[in-house]
Parts: sequence; structure tokens; C-alpha cells
Amino acid sequence: MPVIPNSADYLRLIRSGDTRLLSRALARLDEVQIAALIVPLSPKEQDTILHQLSLELRSEVVASMRYEVSAQVISRLAPEEAARILDNLDSDDVADILGEIEPEQLRAILSRLDDRGELEELLAYPENSAGGIMSLDAARINEDVTIAEATRMIQQEAEELPGSVFYIYVVDEQDRLVGVISLRELVTSKPDVPIHAVMETELIYVTVETDQETVAELASRYDLVAIPVVDEQRRLLGVVTIDDIVDVLREEATEDILKMAGAGDGMASTMSFGASFKARWPWLMAAAVGGLMVAVSLQGFEDSLRTVPALALFMPVVAGMGGNVGTQSSTIMVRGLAVGLVETTRLGRVILREIALGATMGMLYGTGIALAAPLLGTTEADPVNLGLVITFGMVGSMMIAAGVGASVPLFLNRINVDPAVATGPFVTTAVDILGLLFYFWLATVLLQVGG
Amino acid sequence: MPVIPNSADYLRLIRSGDTRLLSRALARLDEVQIAALIVPLSPKEQDTILHQLSLELRSEVVASMRYEVSAQVISRLAPEEAARILDNLDSDDVADILGEIEPEQLRAILSRLDDRGELEELLAYPENSAGGIMSLDAARINEDVTIAEATRMIQQEAEELPGSVFYIYVVDEQDRLVGVISLRELVTSKPDVPIHAVMETELIYVTVETDQETVAELASRYDLVAIPVVDEQRRLLGVVTIDDIVDVLREEATEDILKMAGAGDGMASTMSFGASFKARWPWLMAAAVGGLMVAVSLQGFEDSLRTVPALALFMPVVAGMGGNVGTQSSTIMVRGLAVGLVETTRLGRVILREIALGATMGMLYGTGIALAAPLLGTTEADPVNLGLVITFGMVGSMMIAAGVGASVPLFLNRINVDPAVATGPFVTTAVDILGLLFYFWLATVLLQVGG
Repeated sequence: MPVIPNSADYLRLIRSGDTRLLSRALARLDEVQIAALIVPLSPKEQDTILHQLSLELRSEVVASMRYEVSAQVISRLAPEEAARILDNLDSDDVADILGEIEPEQLRAILSRLDDRGELEELLAYPENSAGGIMSLDAARINEDVTIAEATRMIQQEAEELPGSVFYIYVVDEQDRLVGVISLRELVTSKPDVPIHAVMETELIYVTVETDQETVAELASRYDLVAIPVVDEQRRLLGVVTIDDIVDVLREEATEDILKMAGAGDGMASTMSFGASFKARWPWLMAAAVGGLMVAVSLQGFEDSLRTVPALALFMPVVAGMGGNVGTQSSTIMVRGLAVGLVETTRLGRVILREIALGATMGMLYGTGIALAAPLLGTTEADPVNLGLVITFGMVGSMMIAAGVGASVPLFLNRINVDPAVATGPFVTTAVDILGLLFYFWLATVLLQVGG
Repeated sequence: MPVIPNSADYLRLIRSGDTRLLSRALARLDEVQIAALIVPLSPKEQDTILHQLSLELRSEVVASMRYEVSAQVISRLAPEEAARILDNLDSDDVADILGEIEPEQLRAILSRLDDRGELEELLAYPENSAGGIMSLDAARINEDVTIAEATRMIQQEAEELPGSVFYIYVVDEQDRLVGVISLRELVTSKPDVPIHAVMETELIYVTVETDQETVAELASRYDLVAIPVVDEQRRLLGVVTIDDIVDVLREEATEDILKMAGAGDGMASTMSFGASFKARWPWLMAAAVGGLMVAVSLQGFEDSLRTVPALALFMPVVAGMGGNVGTQSSTIMVRGLAVGLVETTRLGRVILREIALGATMGMLYGTGIALAAPLLGTTEADPVNLGLVITFGMVGSMMIAAGVGASVPLFLNRINVDPAVATGPFVTTAVDILGLLFYFWLATVLLQVGG
């Protein structure tokens, strides 16, 4: 089993300046190991290592990295050198890498590539569409040929077919997709049978415009290793293979996670301060506006605070426990909607279950914290009622939080807003305002302080 | 392109009791569509739909659902009926489903299955290991045969091979894995060449104990559609195919997201109140303990609060903005570590960049909120100094938060604790305590209130 090498060990070698030793250490690694080793290094260190490799291995390493990182490596090269490397890669990988490169440099590299026309075609499709991730090298065969003829054609075209061909797509004379046959069926069928007699005609296919997430969803639900891509006339244009689908799944998972924290929707190792700022300020803006609203809404309780300043000490835990349970509820909903596991036909029950859970947790932890409160030795005259305010304040805050946390994603989903993006600040603000208002209202009633 | 059907439409049909209309509507759907339709329904509704299907289609639907849901469906059947369905599925799917079923019922079903021995072998491996997700039906061939003989063998065994065979594994006379040949190479090689002359000998393989996440990582990095599984003597035991790898990737993404919110590490549509409670209380316990520590640490400032109660109004926004930026920083680190994109050789710089970002954001939003504060009409005598307390309180809180948020995951990763699980409450508590202490300390200094 190949092991991902430790970047720090190689960093020491690079810094020692002993290129002979470095080159000998690198010789023990394959392209995937070198790619994993290189990604966390600085640009200069990356180039030092790439410099030790043959053109072929360097190309394989570039193909094995995430496209964002490959694009950074390629950007640092002269256009001639970049083209030499890219000419060794599959067209869909090249298109993905070029998609991340600045227009001017892109033109300079494109004009030097062997498959320029093909690549310009691929680059014209949106990055996140089936067209943007497909390869143009689909293995295709006419419906009228026999198994034996098809096998011969595959043998003749072996050189041009991509490494990972598993299905052969069957087309009619207008190049329209009519069926598919797996290599396995090709091998196990009788040679004189016509293709159309054994091909599968219940086809799963997508169009160039289909969102990459939908492509991944289909491949995963139907257990396919490749999905053909067609135009509006159902003419076969290309194929999306499982390695790209796996990349999409990983990318989307990262995107979902980052979006839920308001930290952008993609990441690169060398994310600059500026890029990071740009990705993160909108969520913080929403939180700041929410925070101001909280301050405004609590304004009426300054007198209560003057009389019982201990109330302020428990504001963080009342709001925080609400926020935590709200985040749990909303995360479960957001993820449940993404994987199709929310009982969308019984939303009322789902929300009620969350609210009941919030109430139970609030009762449990509220009592615990209220019992611990007098031990803190607060200077409060009425510890029993303060305890009741804390307990039921937490019950209220956590019920509100669970209810809001469960409902907001469902509501956003209904109005076609991505719940992963917008749920967070919404829930926090609502919970802070409603939860703390309830807490102070309780204090006004139970502690008989001015409201 | 097959469309995922709307459960609500079918629910209406189920409730109408018109089974003829329901059965006709279902006839238009394939197994994947029916599976997607069924998952969000109640157990009774699920059974009503399954009842309308032929045994074969019912088996395919069960195979197309998430294992947790399949297991729930299977659990509700009599053991004879369950065995009839499971006998139609691939052994690795059956093992995954049976892995979710209670011991007693499991025994009853197992004793009625055709491949009992094979399944008991698979069930003996841990659920999250390569052994737990592998299929025993690897296509294997001896190294001494020729391409023509290998092709003949594949043709003869066609019936027994799993639907998704793409590689043939080459073994020596001790059944030790020595090479691999893709179906494509089999098709395109000359018939009289011996297998060992054309097979790939640089093998990627795993052992039965390998964690499923590592298997998925390897398949994704090396762009493989299947990975062979061997024992300590390198004897070929089985194969993990890409459909299971895709399932692992999706499962792990959901797990990571839920863990980061402290909402358990897996999900099912019918998660009960009890299961939900069990998954969520530990994180809330950590948050409650943290909240108590916050209350204790702020105790000394009761006098400040009595003098300037307006300080309490801005506690939520000071702590909240810190919490938000801390969550962003920690999420980027947790996810960056998971996908290998953190510049692990330059941690100091990464953390400093986060702190600088926190300072910038704090200055920006702190000033904004301080300027808005007087408009709220707080009854504070010294609005300028209150503004300074808010501004620099937020700068401090957000710097601390970004620094803690970036460092904690790196530290947990170093000591081999999963950063996704433990980062959240840690960061929130640290930020609440340190951020609010700094805020109140500033108030004591600038507003000259008793500290």
C-alpha cells in the first residue's frame, strides 16, 4: 500500500540544497505520492522538486494534483514549457487546469497546444456543468456492427482511447446515442451477434448543461463508472468518467462544509489574505447586523441589568446553548436535505421532534447550570428565582433554537435558496434575539426587576 | 435523464388507497427512482409501495437504498421473506445491510440464506474496514495462462462475475496477487501472449484491516475503479469496487459535517428522539461546562455591569462575531487537513494570516457597530469611550477567535484526535471567555468602572 510521504522530511532535503540526495529520495515515489508531497509546500519548493523530475513524470504529477494547485504550478512556467507538460495529459484534465488560469496566459498556452481546437470547445462549457468536466474521447461504435467488428475497432483505436474506458457507446448514423455495451459484455458475447442485439437501451445520460452535482448524483445512485454526455439532438459529445465524478463529490462536500461556516465555497492551499477576506466578509456582515439587532432588542432591559448584574453572566450560556442546539438541528436538516433523508412528507413531525429535543436538553442543562450558579457565589439576593430564570431561560432558548434551526433550512429549500449558505447567521441572530428576550422577560417577571 | 420523483404525489396515491392507480404510477419508475421515492416515507407507506412490486424489482429497490434504510425495510419482514430478497443481491451489499440488523433477527435471516458461509466471513470484518466493504467475487486468473485462455475463462464465468468487473487480478499458484490486467488490455492484447507479459505489476492494494477512508483516498488519488483486498500473505481475498468507494466518500462527508456541529456521526431518516438525544448530548455537555466557565470568569465584572449596563447589550455581538470568525478559521483548517491542503510546513504563517484577518474584520465591523451604538440611544454617559470599548473589544475577540480557531484543529491533528469532533466547543468556550474578559477589561480601563 503506497504511503503518503511526510512533506517535512523532504523539506529538510530541499533546504539542505543536496539535489542528488533529493532526486534519489524522489525516485522511490510514484506520481501520486509526489503530488501529495508537493501540495503543502511553497511555490519555490514545489518548483525545486518538479525540476528534479523527467518531463513525463512531471506531467503525471501535474495530472495527479487538484486542478487549483496544478494551475498554480502551470502559471509559473513559460508558455512553451506549460504546453509541453499539458500535451501529455487527457483533454478533460487540461481543460480543468486551464479553466483556472488567467485569460492572457491562457491564450499564450492555448496557442501552443496540440489539441487547441478540442480544448477551446471544452473551455466554452461552464466549469460546473457536464460539458465542463467531460472528456471528448468517448469510445463509440455504430449500431450495425457485430461484436467481432466492434472488438477489432477497439483494438485498432486502442492508442487513442482514454486509459479508463469501460463502456462503449452505440450510436446511429446521425451519431445519436442509442445504446451502451460494457467491455465485459463485449468480451463475453458471441462474436457474430450484432451490437444492437446485446446493447443496453435503457440509458442514463446527461446533456452538456447538466450541473456536475446532478451528474455525480446519477452516477452514484445508478452505480455507473461513466455517464455519456449528449446535445439537444441526443448526439454523443463526450463522457464523464468516475474519476471526475469522485472529484466532484469531494469538491461538493468541501463546498457544503465551508458554506455552512460562511467561509467561502472552495479552498486552495495558498488562499491569499485578500481571497480569504472576500470569501468571509459577507457572512460576518450578516452576523454583525444580527448582533446590532440583538443589542437593540435588549435595550429595554438596562434597568434589570443594573439591579441584577448577574443576569449578564449567564447571557453567554443561555444564548450559546441555544446556538449550539440550533446549529445541530440546522446541520441535520441541511445535510438530510442534501442526501435526501429528510422525511419531507412529515415536516411538522420532524420540527416537533427537534423542539421536544430542545426542551429536554434545556431542562437538563438548565437545571444543571442553575444548581451550579449559587456555587459561583454571585451576589444575588434571590438565588432561587435566579435559578428558575436560568433554567427556563435555557429551556425557552433551546426550544426556540431547535425549532428555528429545523425550520429555516426547510423554508430556504422550499423557496430554492441553498440552505447551506444562508441558514447560519439567520439561526444565530433569531436565537440570540428571541432566546435572550425570553430570558430577560422571565427575569422581569420572576425577579420583579424593572423591565 | 431520470428524474427523482416527488414523494408527495405518491403519498397522495397511497392515502387514496387506490392500489391499481399506485401500481400503474410505479410501473413508470426504475429501481433507483422508487428507492429515492420511498426513503422519506413512513415505514407503513414504504411497505405499501414495496408490496406493489415484483420480488425482483423489490430486491433491486432494496439494493438501491442506503444500507441503514434497507436494513429497516428488511427488519420488518419475516426471515423467509427477507432471505428471498437478499438472495438476489451481491454479497457485499447483503453484508452491509445485515451489519445494521439486530443479532437475533440476523441469525434467523442468515440461516436461510444461500451464501451463508460467505456472508459470515464478510460479517466478521469490522464495518469500516476494507474487509467490511469488499466483495468476494474478484475476477482472478493464473499468471501462466495466455490472453486467449483468460478471455475464455472470463466468458465461462460470466454468470458468476459481478456486474461491475473492470479489472482481472492475476495470482500465482499460492493465490498471491502478482498483477492486474484491465478488461481493456485483455481486449486489445494479442491472444497468444501470456498474461504475465502484459499485466501491470505495480499494484495498488489494501489489506482487510485497512480503514475504508484510506481505501477511498487511494482509489481517488490513483483514479481506480476497484482496489484488490489481500491478507497478510498477499493472497487475494476480494475487491472493493468504485460504487462502494463512492458510498464511503458520501458517508464520510456527511459524518464530517455532522461531527463539526456535534450532531452525531451518521444519520438516518427515521432517527428516533432517543438516538438523536444520545448523539447530541455530549457536545451540549461540553458547551454547558464551557458556559459555566464563562459565567465564573466574568463574575468579577458585576460592578462594571451595574454602572454601565449597556456593556451587556453588546456582549452577544462581541462574543458572536468572535465565534463566527473562529468557526470560519477552524472549518477551513479542519477541511484543509482532511483534503491535504493545509501548508503543514508553514503553520506559523497560516495562523498569523488568520489572526491578521481577525484583526482586520474586527476593526471593520467593530467600528461599524460602535458608530451605530449611539443611534440606539443607550443611556450611557460616555459614548466615545463605550465606542472604543466595543471596537477594540471586537478586534481583540476576533483576533483571539481566529488564532484559537486556526490552532486548535492543528494541535488536535498533531495529537491524533479527530479535529472535526473536538474543535467546536473548545473554540466557542475559549473565545467566549478570552474575548469577553478582554472586552470587560477594556471597559474597566476606558470607562473607569469598578473591575
